[in-house]
Amino acid sequence: MRAVVKLGGALFERDPDVAAIGKMATSLAAFAREGNQVVAVAGGGGNARAYIGAARKLGGDESTCDLIGIQLTRANAELLRIALGSAAVSKIPSSISEIPHLAAEGRVLVMGGLQPGQSTNAVAALAAEITRAETLVNATDVEGVYTQDPKKNPKARLIKSVRVDRLLDWAMKVEVFAGKYELLDPLALKIMERARIPSRFVSLKDPQNVIAALRGRQVGTLVVYA
Amino acid sequence: MRAVVKLGGALFERDPDVAAIGKMATSLAAFAREGNQVVAVAGGGGNARAYIGAARKLGGDESTCDLIGIQLTRANAELLRIALGSAAVSKIPSSISEIPHLAAEGRVLVMGGLQPGQSTNAVAALAAEITRAETLVNATDVEGVYTQDPKKNPKARLIKSVRVDRLLDWAMKVEVFAGKYELLDPLALKIMERARIPSRFVSLKDPQNVIAALRGRQVGTLVVYA
Amino acid sequence: MRAVVKLGGALFERDPDVAAIGKMATSLAAFAREGNQVVAVAGGGGNARAYIGAARKLGGDESTCDLIGIQLTRANAELLRIALGSAAVSKIPSSISEIPHLAAEGRVLVMGGLQPGQSTNAVAALAAEITRAETLVNATDVEGVYTQDPKKNPKARLIKSVRVDRLLDWAMKVEVFAGKYELLDPLALKIMERARIPSRFVSLKDPQNVIAALRGRQVGTLVVYA
Amino acid sequence: MRAVVKLGGALFERDPDVAAIGKMATSLAAFAREGNQVVAVAGGGGNARAYIGAARKLGGDESTCDLIGIQLTRANAELLRIALGSAAVSKIPSSISEIPHLAAEGRVLVMGGLQPGQSTNAVAALAAEITRAETLVNATDVEGVYTQDPKKNPKARLIKSVRVDRLLDWAMKVEVFAGKYELLDPLALKIMERARIPSRFVSLKDPQNVIAALRGRQVGTLVVYA
Amino acid sequence: MRAVVKLGGALFERDPDVAAIGKMATSLAAFAREGNQVVAVAGGGGNARAYIGAARKLGGDESTCDLIGIQLTRANAELLRIALGSAAVSKIPSSISEIPHLAAEGRVLVMGGLQPGQSTNAVAALAAEITRAETLVNATDVEGVYTQDPKKNPKARLIKSVRVDRLLDWAMKVEVFAGKYELLDPLALKIMERARIPSRFVSLKDPQNVIAALRGRQVGTLVVYA
Amino acid sequence: MRAVVKLGGALFERDPDVAAIGKMATSLAAFAREGNQVVAVAGGGGNARAYIGAARKLGGDESTCDLIGIQLTRANAELLRIALGSAAVSKIPSSISEIPHLAAEGRVLVMGGLQPGQSTNAVAALAAEITRAETLVNATDVEGVYTQDPKKNPKARLIKSVRVDRLLDWAMKVEVFAGKYELLDPLALKIMERARIPSRFVSLKDPQNVIAALRGRQVGTLVVYA
Repeated sequence: MRAVVKLGGALFERDPDVAAIGKMATSLAAFAREGNQVVAVAGGGGNARAYIGAARKLGGDESTCDLIGIQLTRANAELLRIALGSAAVSKIPSSISEIPHLAAEGRVLVMGGLQPGQSTNAVAALAAEITRAETLVNATDVEGVYTQDPKKNPKARLIKSVRVDRLLDWAMKVEVFAGKYELLDPLALKIMERARIPSRFVSLKDPQNVIAALRGRQVGTLVVYA
Repeated sequence: MRAVVKLGGALFERDPDVAAIGKMATSLAAFAREGNQVVAVAGGGGNARAYIGAARKLGGDESTCDLIGIQLTRANAELLRIALGSAAVSKIPSSISEIPHLAAEGRVLVMGGLQPGQSTNAVAALAAEITRAETLVNATDVEGVYTQDPKKNPKARLIKSVRVDRLLDWAMKVEVFAGKYELLDPLALKIMERARIPSRFVSLKDPQNVIAALRGRQVGTLVVYA
Repeated sequence: MRAVVKLGGALFERDPDVAAIGKMATSLAAFAREGNQVVAVAGGGGNARAYIGAARKLGGDESTCDLIGIQLTRANAELLRIALGSAAVSKIPSSISEIPHLAAEGRVLVMGGLQPGQSTNAVAALAAEITRAETLVNATDVEGVYTQDPKKNPKARLIKSVRVDRLLDWAMKVEVFAGKYELLDPLALKIMERARIPSRFVSLKDPQNVIAALRGRQVGTLVVYA
Repeated sequence: MRAVVKLGGALFERDPDVAAIGKMATSLAAFAREGNQVVAVAGGGGNARAYIGAARKLGGDESTCDLIGIQLTRANAELLRIALGSAAVSKIPSSISEIPHLAAEGRVLVMGGLQPGQSTNAVAALAAEITRAETLVNATDVEGVYTQDPKKNPKARLIKSVRVDRLLDWAMKVEVFAGKYELLDPLALKIMERARIPSRFVSLKDPQNVIAALRGRQVGTLVVYA
Repeated sequence: MRAVVKLGGALFERDPDVAAIGKMATSLAAFAREGNQVVAVAGGGGNARAYIGAARKLGGDESTCDLIGIQLTRANAELLRIALGSAAVSKIPSSISEIPHLAAEGRVLVMGGLQPGQSTNAVAALAAEITRAETLVNATDVEGVYTQDPKKNPKARLIKSVRVDRLLDWAMKVEVFAGKYELLDPLALKIMERARIPSRFVSLKDPQNVIAALRGRQVGTLVVYA
Repeated sequence: MRAVVKLGGALFERDPDVAAIGKMATSLAAFAREGNQVVAVAGGGGNARAYIGAARKLGGDESTCDLIGIQLTRANAELLRIALGSAAVSKIPSSISEIPHLAAEGRVLVMGGLQPGQSTNAVAALAAEITRAETLVNATDVEGVYTQDPKKNPKARLIKSVRVDRLLDWAMKVEVFAGKYELLDPLALKIMERARIPSRFVSLKDPQNVIAALRGRQVGTLVVYA
């Protein structure tokens, strides 16, 4: 099968969690070696936020802050590529149009961000669209989409499936400053909607959870189209 | 001053309207030669729609349709660059990060689309942000933003100024298929909002109208931030 | 076998003929899947002529007109690549030296024009030379080379084989403005001559005709070397 | 004024003639510093022929032989660029479309060959066309165009002016193998003809001769258009 | 004058010290605006070490660790470029040969690392050589070269001038793992020696100290050639 | 197995020795076709020295002389690539990071130099490191490392194995001007040391000798790590 996974910045802490990255890589490599074509998009995480914050304080405009954040997502992608060893495609794409040429059965194509104004969630959605992926998994530090913010409200309840237009309503209230929390990126949701990509939001804490989602199992939150 | 103008696809008909492109170029060249730095982003128009339509019928995914549309916007940009003659920067940028290096006082930097998932409106907003433009003018085939669709309803009234969040509400209802009508592109609006770029929607029929908007005169519809 | 086919601009009308492009793609894909390595070069057609015409009226020099025509041939190539689906190499080369690296057995490598001063016929001849193609087929809107212009003179007779030096004599009388009728491009003929590439001129109306020519069958006009 | 000069391979011998290159550079630099925009195209010479010859013996096709010859013309261009010092643009273009962006008043833009199938004479003609040069000078090891080969026949007489169609007739009899004597390159002549570029063939032995030709003085052979 | 300054990684801490970067930028901008041409090379610092450490633990070879460190030096360069505002050249070079084309009087050209196996000290030395810089300043977290490690031995004495061959002797004892302490990089020293570039090692704590060194004042340690 | 071989400039004489290059290619092709992944790095040789010499006389700095020498190593690499025919990867890498993506089992990836300040020996060491080669063979015009210069002293004795630190001591006494004799390049030795690459210095006169060394047989001089 053809799959795309977005690995949230939470996997890439200030001091990169080598054990966590290594485990995720092992699971993705095994999944790819079954004959699957995987594109893995690395998010920004703590170091991206640190650089973006410094860039903003030094007077950088948001597009330039985006660019500096993209550089950090590519450094994160490089870590993941190293951890995947021979299971990884050895080149990191620098544009959407390169993806179909580089993606390969049995291998993981690793990438980071591409252009200002596009979150890595949007990159993952575009990668899923252009490779005609059968599944797009967005792995973050929460179990999926909740009725409320689970970090603030203990009564927050995980939603098993959610319509994309409801997500879009929520997304439009989020601000789009570089490096901001971007679970609900409107551009990514619009791409998912136009290509009707089967998509799930899951936790990246347990790599097996991510693999289960890639196989289309019922974990996290499923996105439903009208 | 530093300005960005998006020239809607209406300027680039199936049979390119050489007279209209020539007049627009003459006006933009004169404005730039006063010492202004101008970035002009060409939209897609009829030929882009024809190619996108064919690509879609041949089974292309929307990202690939975006890419083929982008090729046509670049052909349109090339026409505009030729019409500008020595007033144009002779290179057409292929990424946002190239813009600040190529933009120059007294010259017009012409460009088309860049990446799938980004309309040329979003490109214009990002160009305005990264060049810290003092004005962004979006020139289309209508006078600005109306209370209703002016092509369908004669009672539609031009709005003199509109809050960006109201535009965003409208924009989210629009579908994002390649080449679609994109006056109200949510990504472009989000960028305009985060950078608080002074922006206007105007008609491109009269080039002097576009120049007036670039000078910040009261024409068309002004976007207001909270 | 290794083959190169030039698909004349007639396949790419103002409103791209999706049915014709689709049929040609199906035939080429089947031929490639037999284990053949195919390079297909798309010509310009009506849209290229429209843009070149506009560029010239706006004051563009012929090299720049060539460049804008090349952009349109690449949009045409993209349509063909989409129609070929998984039978196509997913990248479109941007220089002659990339061709040997991208061409692959069982696949069709699609491309358009490359550089000013080189028609797509010359590109096809160079592609045939650098891939050591066993056959080069130039498919246009006529059945081959005629004793006279078959569109003007009903007595025009199809020539079964013609010496390259005779073609060259005719070719030198043709003017080389961008987008002009280029069946008899002197540069292409010179390349064919130096590499002694087995070449045929055939009609592109029936895809099976083109495939027959690729297999070396007696259709259209064969080019003979001294 | 805007000028293009092709410096024949004779300036770049097996053991590069540092004194001759230095003198030519001094003259071109002085001419440019008067406020002229100069593009200088370096030919191949003895080392290009040695590499092309070896490539051919090793089984290289003519396009690949062209490519290796192009590498040597670029090494020659680099020598000329070094000799020009601060009078040279510091970047060597790798495509025709880069030329207008890099060419600059008061400076010499140095380049070599670009693509297989294009001699450096054709590159010079295209450079002249795209920069709208007022003069194109082709400097070789003979004084201009002769009635016969001056190296073989002492009665050969220098022609003061010649019609381009007569040159084309002669040119078509020349073979186009990589690195071959290419005074009369048909592609170059076709470009000169379509752009009606005021052109002269002169000797490169005396740099002042080349500068005189760049100024439009009556030296060598002038090309006349119908 | 033409100057190159290497800004040690100490300026780029885990949490980028925005105040320190800002002050350094202000001083460099003022110095450049006097009409000087400055190339500033950013080192790696704490974040580069963190990523290199993670890459190595994940099994990356040293060349790949170098590459990931280079990405972080470029993020650091981007911060410096932002801080410099309009005093910076807006493009960051990605090869040595781009430097002469981008460097400009009155501006600071900012860059990071380029290739595996080359420290940013070597990059700075090559940049000094190819721009024929009149001074190369290597600013680190110590005052210059000491008789012993000043961090371990309070009796360590600052050396006012030192012969390059003595530095080379010391340098060869240092290991060359990615991200290691690289004051005494043998490749950088070899380049300095062959080009006899007037060079100083100084502290980057006080920007005025760095500017003084750029002006050739007696601060830190001067490198002397035989 | 994965192997890297540096072919010294002696293989690429002023008049390229087509027979010698052809034989070497035949041997390398046969070795690769056993299923081995080979990277072959071409040195500069006589033509590189001729161009570097001319560049230096014309006032080129050493970095620019390096660049011109690199162009010649790439022309040499092209000759070798042609001689290898279908056993060669058809693209020549232009950076270290491209190598893992292009190297392939059963094929020879040919390359030349990359960047100023890096000899082709250093390139070969970096290529060995990043491909995790099991052997690195440095083939020159002498049998290996001698107790003294074998060309000057008949009593010079070939050393069977030598510690890398002893080589480094010798290397540091060598000057690093562009194109200079570079058997003992300190940067290459440092890379070999950090990656502990099993390495041999052998003669390139007999291709079977080179293949024997690639197989790890006892020929020439083995480098030993502490």
